[in-house]
Amino acid sequence: MLIVMQAHATDEQVRAVCQKIEGLGYRAHAIPGAERTAIGLTGNQGEVEPAALEEMPGVQEVIRVTKPYKLVSRDIKPDNTVIRFAGTDATIGGPELAIIAGPCGIESREQAFAVAERVARAGAQFFRGGAYKPRTSPYSFQGLGEKGLQIMAEVREMFGLRIVTEAIDNESLELVDEYADIIQIGARNMQNFSLLKRAGRARKPVLLKRGMSATLEELLMAAEYIMSEGNYNVILCERGVRTFADHTRNTLDLSLIPAVQRLSHLPIVVDPSHGTGKRNKVTPMSRAAVAVGADGLIVEVHHQPDKALSDGMQSLYPDQFDELMVQVRQIAPVVGRTARSAVTPQPSAV
Amino acid sequence: MLIVMQAHATDEQVRAVCQKIEGLGYRAHAIPGAERTAIGLTGNQGEVEPAALEEMPGVQEVIRVTKPYKLVSRDIKPDNTVIRFAGTDATIGGPELAIIAGPCGIESREQAFAVAERVARAGAQFFRGGAYKPRTSPYSFQGLGEKGLQIMAEVREMFGLRIVTEAIDNESLELVDEYADIIQIGARNMQNFSLLKRAGRARKPVLLKRGMSATLEELLMAAEYIMSEGNYNVILCERGVRTFADHTRNTLDLSLIPAVQRLSHLPIVVDPSHGTGKRNKVTPMSRAAVAVGADGLIVEVHHQPDKALSDGMQSLYPDQFDELMVQVRQIAPVVGRTARSAVTPQPSAV
Amino acid sequence: MLIVMQAHATDEQVRAVCQKIEGLGYRAHAIPGAERTAIGLTGNQGEVEPAALEEMPGVQEVIRVTKPYKLVSRDIKPDNTVIRFAGTDATIGGPELAIIAGPCGIESREQAFAVAERVARAGAQFFRGGAYKPRTSPYSFQGLGEKGLQIMAEVREMFGLRIVTEAIDNESLELVDEYADIIQIGARNMQNFSLLKRAGRARKPVLLKRGMSATLEELLMAAEYIMSEGNYNVILCERGVRTFADHTRNTLDLSLIPAVQRLSHLPIVVDPSHGTGKRNKVTPMSRAAVAVGADGLIVEVHHQPDKALSDGMQSLYPDQFDELMVQVRQIAPVVGRTARSAVTPQPSAV
Amino acid sequence: MLIVMQAHATDEQVRAVCQKIEGLGYRAHAIPGAERTAIGLTGNQGEVEPAALEEMPGVQEVIRVTKPYKLVSRDIKPDNTVIRFAGTDATIGGPELAIIAGPCGIESREQAFAVAERVARAGAQFFRGGAYKPRTSPYSFQGLGEKGLQIMAEVREMFGLRIVTEAIDNESLELVDEYADIIQIGARNMQNFSLLKRAGRARKPVLLKRGMSATLEELLMAAEYIMSEGNYNVILCERGVRTFADHTRNTLDLSLIPAVQRLSHLPIVVDPSHGTGKRNKVTPMSRAAVAVGADGLIVEVHHQPDKALSDGMQSLYPDQFDELMVQVRQIAPVVGRTARSAVTPQPSAV
Repeated sequence: MLIVMQAHATDEQVRAVCQKIEGLGYRAHAIPGAERTAIGLTGNQGEVEPAALEEMPGVQEVIRVTKPYKLVSRDIKPDNTVIRFAGTDATIGGPELAIIAGPCGIESREQAFAVAERVARAGAQFFRGGAYKPRTSPYSFQGLGEKGLQIMAEVREMFGLRIVTEAIDNESLELVDEYADIIQIGARNMQNFSLLKRAGRARKPVLLKRGMSATLEELLMAAEYIMSEGNYNVILCERGVRTFADHTRNTLDLSLIPAVQRLSHLPIVVDPSHGTGKRNKVTPMSRAAVAVGADGLIVEVHHQPDKALSDGMQSLYPDQFDELMVQVRQIAPVVGRTARSAVTPQPSAV
Repeated sequence: MLIVMQAHATDEQVRAVCQKIEGLGYRAHAIPGAERTAIGLTGNQGEVEPAALEEMPGVQEVIRVTKPYKLVSRDIKPDNTVIRFAGTDATIGGPELAIIAGPCGIESREQAFAVAERVARAGAQFFRGGAYKPRTSPYSFQGLGEKGLQIMAEVREMFGLRIVTEAIDNESLELVDEYADIIQIGARNMQNFSLLKRAGRARKPVLLKRGMSATLEELLMAAEYIMSEGNYNVILCERGVRTFADHTRNTLDLSLIPAVQRLSHLPIVVDPSHGTGKRNKVTPMSRAAVAVGADGLIVEVHHQPDKALSDGMQSLYPDQFDELMVQVRQIAPVVGRTARSAVTPQPSAV
Repeated sequence: MLIVMQAHATDEQVRAVCQKIEGLGYRAHAIPGAERTAIGLTGNQGEVEPAALEEMPGVQEVIRVTKPYKLVSRDIKPDNTVIRFAGTDATIGGPELAIIAGPCGIESREQAFAVAERVARAGAQFFRGGAYKPRTSPYSFQGLGEKGLQIMAEVREMFGLRIVTEAIDNESLELVDEYADIIQIGARNMQNFSLLKRAGRARKPVLLKRGMSATLEELLMAAEYIMSEGNYNVILCERGVRTFADHTRNTLDLSLIPAVQRLSHLPIVVDPSHGTGKRNKVTPMSRAAVAVGADGLIVEVHHQPDKALSDGMQSLYPDQFDELMVQVRQIAPVVGRTARSAVTPQPSAV
Repeated sequence: MLIVMQAHATDEQVRAVCQKIEGLGYRAHAIPGAERTAIGLTGNQGEVEPAALEEMPGVQEVIRVTKPYKLVSRDIKPDNTVIRFAGTDATIGGPELAIIAGPCGIESREQAFAVAERVARAGAQFFRGGAYKPRTSPYSFQGLGEKGLQIMAEVREMFGLRIVTEAIDNESLELVDEYADIIQIGARNMQNFSLLKRAGRARKPVLLKRGMSATLEELLMAAEYIMSEGNYNVILCERGVRTFADHTRNTLDLSLIPAVQRLSHLPIVVDPSHGTGKRNKVTPMSRAAVAVGADGLIVEVHHQPDKALSDGMQSLYPDQFDELMVQVRQIAPVVGRTARSAVTPQPSAV
């Protein structure tokens, strides 16, 4: 921590701040400058509450230096975290791009199977779909609940896809942990610390979406909450932030990817569907996300978007998703990645 | 809903949209203009998923017209909601300003009593204090939990103050509903819909803080969640939003107050402590909040801010709070309000 | 400047940074901490380009400490700047609130006189009106140009009001400097540095509006540009910033007022008309602006808002402005201010 | 334009609004809905000032429908604008990516030549460099002025690169129009309408940077200003917008690219240097910009970034730029583009 004194601060004020710091059990280092004195504070193990210092006479500003996160940091673990799933070669954070695709919400067995069949064939390794939907309006479709989870478990059996679905409270997290392969924490719950702690005690990896106005540091601290409870398998997700810009539903902040990768060992994927809110921007932004170096994509696909009960406007048609995969596959090698091939349908035996 | 066609849309495209609308069970009204045609959609009871229409050939834009909230709206209830508390004449939403004051977190019985004694004397009717603290870091002080609630219940007995404290999950909400007079839902949980529904089934009024990047409509929809479960006693709270501005911790958006009052019958209070994050801005912004027409204030006060375990930088000293009340009392009548007088300490009998 | 080293930085890397700093002619102060070392840089007179240091091996972050402004700062001039106008007792920055009112654009002599008569009578000392209008569309009304300035000069003669009007380039600034009493620089030109320098060589005071996404520091640096050319009469103006919030045209950031007053000796006024963009929010936010401690208001008033060529939606009717002045007059004393009385119309001689 | 009436609006209020609309010379179309009536307004050629309507009794909201731009729109010109330069095969908006590279500011002939030689060799067709620098501080390096322009003209002769440089006022625009090949209008001047009009009368193409908080529509309207004066050669540029995010200097909004391409025929390039403000993010975001479909890049390169007089932190080393070009060249074909090859240095004749 650095305490910057005012230009006219007296020697006595500087001394008082130094004494205060030492009284709190830290060490003070006065650095006299041409215009003003700054005082370094060292010896702290974690955060120091700046209140004691900021309001002292002669103090202009208090600047925090030490970053508050530990377990998410590359300082602790220099190598990338690669998340593996038993019984499959799919990974997140490894050389192969992780492609997560599926409808916004699970609406029926038929719908889930129709979409799953197509995304599996196109090369996705993971199936997404909401059983518990956090909707802005209490009068909108809220998801099928446990029934939706059961349908997704069937999808896993049938198509070999790993399942990603959102938990919205402790009760649903319990069930998601049981049925799914990855527990999603949504943007609106990124700072629901009670839920984060519960997810930290779950057995399954957690996909943590960035909050709508979360800074990089807040996102990492939310991951720290999960890790501090013992669950080290956290996947970060950029899904757009809220700005004044109105040509997209959110502003997808792709520069977060290299910024996270510099500070943290955790994998990070991009959600271009919520990140733009418009179907015609999903494929261009997916290309960009792979090009910037993301570890994967999470994309909404629906076989009948105009009949979707939610998010139809941003869901791709299966043919568009096929095309997205074709393009992504071409960009992957430029960033040292591979992308899974589409499955050629076997000619049925006569 | 209004569907705006492209300038070059053909008559056939216009017709196709109209037929689609009617196929969905609504009525279509084509409005040919000088440059383009717009099509009004009526007959819907609630929200229409725009996906079906937005991607049709010739469609440029779909504009939603009907507001999605009902119970919070002045359309339903033209008169202001006034919240009353048994056994006291304190109200929120009535002519008297509601003043809620106290420390960020309950740290001990001594601290709570020291602060409560001062804020009661200064004219506050409500005591705030966190027993469950949502902190950005898992390594920061997380609150005393139920012990904190018990201390607050003692504060009520001793000083006659009504108690406001935050619930962070279903478990803590249960306890807060039992011990406190008002259940606070924090900014980070404004769209924790599971918690909102649970609060809607609680017996006590709910103070709902605006999320860090919530629009007016989202705030009202969050209140709608609570009301849709049967709890009509909701108090809204502006506590600053996140912007690029860095001279305060958040940007306090006082224009929300008249905007809410135009659309909704619910009372709204202002939190200048979180709204600015700096002690020296709390009193000026409190004056402004009262002048703009807020129904009350929620202010952090600590008898020893430089020893506070959280939010010390934005907590007022008790003497500063006395002065704030003096100023607020002078502004109240300009907006047709009253503010409670300070209690003159009785000379102790000899 | 403070250079924060990475947790794993070697002693050699720390030494290299210190040597680099000293090679640039400054002094280096290494401050070893529990987790990492920070290095203070002193001896600089102004800004140091951080590039040389930020990319050195082992460096995590470079934090700037010295503020880049000089002339605007209270460090240089502790007392408030009070701007006076020859031939009148009107001031800006003194104890009397400065009230600037008038139409968005000067449309005709009749319009200007009709509005001026009413605002003068209500207690305004300054008349605003655009002769050069920066409009988002090239096809919108662009102002009357010099003809508008002449009308405003007549307003001064007739009603004793001082004239405030916007300059949009060097040519118009020349004319505004000649005709008006205060040269306005609009929000869109806050970082038009060429225009700022030209305004710094003008004879008249400059009213500088905060840019739509300007930080406090950028606003002060823009004022510094004007002052660095010799014109010390600068009035700052908060007029709302751009955020995600959509219930007002801009988000009026009233906390800027106390923040500016802490750092700078320059007066600051508030524009609630552009700050909200909605007529029904102008009076509440005017009350709030005075309550927070602003030195004055700049308000749009039109005698026929529904026929205004620009900004009709946010212009007050003259009767509304009368009422605004009544309310503002009641709040002023709470913050140690006075506000001019309305002029009682003299009975005309028979 | 659509006028939405309140739920409780009376028939008389609806009639009054219709009569008002017709009194203004337009046509009114009442559309009664289940909950409320909406009134369509048609017959307008351009923008209608909504003030006359918004404040009428019973009116809830006025929604604008017609877009205010004409010349920039694909409605007027469906085919992409391709900008050509006499005496070279370089284009902007054609199938070949336009690569603009060079230092932030022209500091000396030596510096300019050293950088130009490297960027030409790497495959750039355009050379950027500031002769007039808009700096936040009046005490920072402000550029070499006309001397800088002369150096750039020499660069063109020597290396065959087309020259891009910024004009900051009418005087410098005159000179830039004379010396350079493309006139840059900086982000801070995007709504300096006087400068835009002057640029509209220049002979050279204009590269128009998006303002720090400009919406898509405002950017297009700024281009409309230039085009409305007769200069149809406008290149748009995304360079990052201001948000709360603090891990980059600005937030690069790549979704603007497909959004612009849908509405406008004008080419659009991306500036990842200002868009991120950090050297280590320039190459990843350049890859993303090409992948999303931008028509080109504008990148800061300096042969000695740590000695740069401005923007050193975000300038690439020439070797890094070589590598950027290698990567970009691999991504271009995925989006149907080509990128120029690096020039293999000829062995000098013995």
